[in-house]
Amino acid sequence: MTQSTISAETGPADRPSRLRLAYDDLVAFTTRVFTAHGMSGERARTAATALVYGDLTGVTSHGLTNLTRLYLKLFADGRVKPDARPRVLADRGAAVLQDADQGLGLWVAAEAMTLAADRAADHGVGLVSVKNSTHIGCAGYHAGLAADRQMIGLIASNCGRQRIIRPPGAAVTMLGTNPLSLAAPAGPGHHPFVLDMSTTVVPTGRVRAQARAGLPAPEGWLENDRGEPVTDPAAFDRGEAHLMWLGGRPETGAYKGYGLGLLVEILGALLPGAGHGPEPAALAGDGGPSGRDDDIGFVALAIAPGTLRPIEEFAADARGLFGTLLAAPPVDPDGQVSYPGWHEAERAARHLGTGVPVTPGLYGELTAVGRDLGITPPTPLREES
Amino acid sequence: MTQSTISAETGPADRPSRLRLAYDDLVAFTTRVFTAHGMSGERARTAATALVYGDLTGVTSHGLTNLTRLYLKLFADGRVKPDARPRVLADRGAAVLQDADQGLGLWVAAEAMTLAADRAADHGVGLVSVKNSTHIGCAGYHAGLAADRQMIGLIASNCGRQRIIRPPGAAVTMLGTNPLSLAAPAGPGHHPFVLDMSTTVVPTGRVRAQARAGLPAPEGWLENDRGEPVTDPAAFDRGEAHLMWLGGRPETGAYKGYGLGLLVEILGALLPGAGHGPEPAALAGDGGPSGRDDDIGFVALAIAPGTLRPIEEFAADARGLFGTLLAAPPVDPDGQVSYPGWHEAERAARHLGTGVPVTPGLYGELTAVGRDLGITPPTPLREES
Repeated sequence: MTQSTISAETGPADRPSRLRLAYDDLVAFTTRVFTAHGMSGERARTAATALVYGDLTGVTSHGLTNLTRLYLKLFADGRVKPDARPRVLADRGAAVLQDADQGLGLWVAAEAMTLAADRAADHGVGLVSVKNSTHIGCAGYHAGLAADRQMIGLIASNCGRQRIIRPPGAAVTMLGTNPLSLAAPAGPGHHPFVLDMSTTVVPTGRVRAQARAGLPAPEGWLENDRGEPVTDPAAFDRGEAHLMWLGGRPETGAYKGYGLGLLVEILGALLPGAGHGPEPAALAGDGGPSGRDDDIGFVALAIAPGTLRPIEEFAADARGLFGTLLAAPPVDPDGQVSYPGWHEAERAARHLGTGVPVTPGLYGELTAVGRDLGITPPTPLREES
Repeated sequence: MTQSTISAETGPADRPSRLRLAYDDLVAFTTRVFTAHGMSGERARTAATALVYGDLTGVTSHGLTNLTRLYLKLFADGRVKPDARPRVLADRGAAVLQDADQGLGLWVAAEAMTLAADRAADHGVGLVSVKNSTHIGCAGYHAGLAADRQMIGLIASNCGRQRIIRPPGAAVTMLGTNPLSLAAPAGPGHHPFVLDMSTTVVPTGRVRAQARAGLPAPEGWLENDRGEPVTDPAAFDRGEAHLMWLGGRPETGAYKGYGLGLLVEILGALLPGAGHGPEPAALAGDGGPSGRDDDIGFVALAIAPGTLRPIEEFAADARGLFGTLLAAPPVDPDGQVSYPGWHEAERAARHLGTGVPVTPGLYGELTAVGRDLGITPPTPLREES
């Protein structure tokens, strides 16, 4: 089935009609795509699970849309090694330094968090510092692997040498969108807490999505050289507007967003000695994005509460804390107070039952990829408008 | 000398004239105040150094102004134990759980970070999780103790059961301003990186300072029940305005600020089982601040790069990264691009030479405290308008 055979009504510009694909089918298909590019079956399945997590939870900016736009290009350009042989450069028991040998970040990060959690089980805390990685996908997926083991997991990843955003008061770009994620169990019966955020006000994908949809960028996303608000999202790629830090203007915390971006750069890249945005080449920048996201650095940190106090006590405390948040009276009587990760988990539960929604455009991309590799794409369960 | 004998011209409302006191004199005086309240000399000096750090670096909201407003009240009310006997509840080598026994947080947190750094020297990473603490002062001071040892230090402290801010969409307050700090060496010749931030747009002290100065609150600090901006800072203490999250409105990242507040609550309080804001009593709140900052929880995390790769390599990389930021061309030709901690360290260096600036009002408070305890306050070096 190709895109042209799908009868898909186009909805509003920001919400085209969607197809539904079975989660297991999507993971199996994506696994085959990665094995067709030379990865072993086990690695490919790990990477596929991490990638499809974006679509499963509704974080579509970091899901299968990146298969053709990002990951397959890395394979094509030789910037990722399917048969990478990561090496341990130092091992202190609780802390490990690794060279990922240009392995696919989707797989490398899952392995790193698993190792960090193993070490935390023995030492209370486990840290795996990684250099020479590639794009890890949703940081929250990897942090969540710790939460699945009743641990707290933290992921901080830089964007290699890619420079998207300027330090406050600077005329050149220095840092990437530098994601930070923390996951933790929220107690029996509650979806885990999963914070997964860029340290810029939004990631660049959100700006471009507004432009594609013909919608304005909300005030507070972009500014021009004089620090004035810009609401035309296309101005970003024309070099006429710059992405803002979380915190927005200086008086509302731009320095905190910048500081968090640097926190990620330090923990993710300075610690292992990975590529980083603020390198001499940055000084010659013209003020716009520059550099490439090669030699990405990230840290996987796991903390095992059950090694410090009875895990039942921790779980009961977590249940109380997050249960109180969920029980908070909402301002809107029909509202539901929640916490990061809650909506994503609700969506994932629905999508496991009804199928994962995929736009006709993305389905077309997947079928084209499958055709080139001789892999049958998943058959849609049903259509949804 | 009492306040009335000081000839002090009052400057603009937000910048009254100031006295200069020698740093060593201020620390010695504050040490004697704490010993007069029953602390041992060593503990008192550690706490005094942590407190005066606020004035030394210009973070005056967390400096000696809190001596009478916060710390001496805790002593008077029996909410802090001068002879506290912290207990180790669990020790896994790299990770330690401690009950601080209501010790003065200014001292407890410095001890915790020192212990975390000791453990990091052996294991690569060290984590000390603390419950039953009191207010720790500037989180950045404690994180900086790790940077002084060529390590990365992280401090995350909740505010006990104190509730200041509402989750997005909630009609009751649930969390405190929950500070998060990361410090790291920035390479030879560079001031260390020290990020020290509340996870709200500003801490409450900044709102009240604007009100005292008769100045408006910048748009983006406060909002009313309908989510509309409020610029009268006094509206906060009248219960007519609520503090906003870092990130501001929902479309510019309120959920990230909320998530960071919860990140601190999880790492600081849920991990050790300390008091936390979201407890059942919170559900009965009237929408305004509630709860007390007792049984504060915090985490001190240290990472020792030198255990994973040659420290000279790490230092050279840090020097390159932060040197590039400092060398960035500024938008304002007279500007200086910097990073969190740089301005504070510049100020501290100046104040060590010229004396620490203290307002006449604060000097009056210190002399009054000294008079009650029979301790001579520091003699001003000279006056400054």
